[in-house]
Amino acid sequence: MTAAFAPVPVPLAKAYRLLNHGPVTLVSTAHEGRSNVMAASWAMPLDFDPPKVVVVVDKSTLTRQLMEASGEFALSLPARQLAAEVVKAGSLSGKEGDKWIATGLDNFPAEKIAAPLVAGCVGWLECRIIEEPRNQQQYDLFIGEVVAAWADPRVFHDGHWVFDHADERLRTLHYVAGGNFLVTGEAIHVDDAA
Amino acid sequence: MTAAFAPVPVPLAKAYRLLNHGPVTLVSTAHEGRSNVMAASWAMPLDFDPPKVVVVVDKSTLTRQLMEASGEFALSLPARQLAAEVVKAGSLSGKEGDKWIATGLDNFPAEKIAAPLVAGCVGWLECRIIEEPRNQQQYDLFIGEVVAAWADPRVFHDGHWVFDHADERLRTLHYVAGGNFLVTGEAIHVDDAA
Repeated sequence: MTAAFAPVPVPLAKAYRLLNHGPVTLVSTAHEGRSNVMAASWAMPLDFDPPKVVVVVDKSTLTRQLMEASGEFALSLPARQLAAEVVKAGSLSGKEGDKWIATGLDNFPAEKIAAPLVAGCVGWLECRIIEEPRNQQQYDLFIGEVVAAWADPRVFHDGHWVFDHADERLRTLHYVAGGNFLVTGEAIHVDDAA
Repeated sequence: MTAAFAPVPVPLAKAYRLLNHGPVTLVSTAHEGRSNVMAASWAMPLDFDPPKVVVVVDKSTLTRQLMEASGEFALSLPARQLAAEVVKAGSLSGKEGDKWIATGLDNFPAEKIAAPLVAGCVGWLECRIIEEPRNQQQYDLFIGEVVAAWADPRVFHDGHWVFDHADERLRTLHYVAGGNFLVTGEAIHVDDAA
């Protein structure tokens, strides 16, 4: 694994850029000394400023319990170097033992919330839940306001992902199913004044 | 542009696979003889079976008017060959003139809904809105049940995207901002029994 690199803050108005391209996420949570991490593909921005996100988290999960108990969660955006750990985070249950140990994922403290952030990732969104009981009960859908955001400056700077000249292991991932991912690929630009 | 290719049906239980990797979408709509198309990055699966999706559509748009009037929308997944048209679909307004003409995008009839599907795309989801007035008003968030799904068999078969040996112009796109996209990249597999 690439050595850890210090995350730099992303201005909140640019936080949606971290998630805009639809990467897989790791949802981390903590409450009263218990902490967990799970994989979630169904996460996306909901608003620009103040930034909000939505994420789908099933009722059966420990993550769900800790989210509801704490009112918080973090989304970490794993890079290719963590693909094997992401699959474990998506298939094991935190109810059956410490998921950090089971996945081999490491973490570090967030700034604004109790949930930790996942080490080796390239973007991080600290979120406080905006309670919407019907969405949560009916659709397993949670809305979070992003209260802090961070990125690995090797692949995100000036409000943009810049993967093209970086270490290939730092590219974000898009989940398909059954252990299959599509890696974030080539950057292209189209003149939007066209 | 690559010549049109006949879409093949995707079983509804596999429809989420089209959208799971977080590609940019084109939202198309129709009502009483009026039709429109716009770009939306904020779309994702919400449930497997019956499949549901969520999409964020701003109140100011013609697409929003036609969605609310018809109760339907389609999500088409544009390939790289349509990147310039996607940017136009995201920056022009259907209120100022026929967006199909303005973008140069062509369309063809859906099977279950009145909204047309966008030609030159590689995946299509026909959706009926599940009315959730609070989400729509408060968050511009719409929930749709997927009632039919289609894919271009050159890049999606047996329930999976298979881009690696296909024409590069058929890869899906992930939107960043300001005319910048990240193309869907390399496929990788991790053994999930690990």
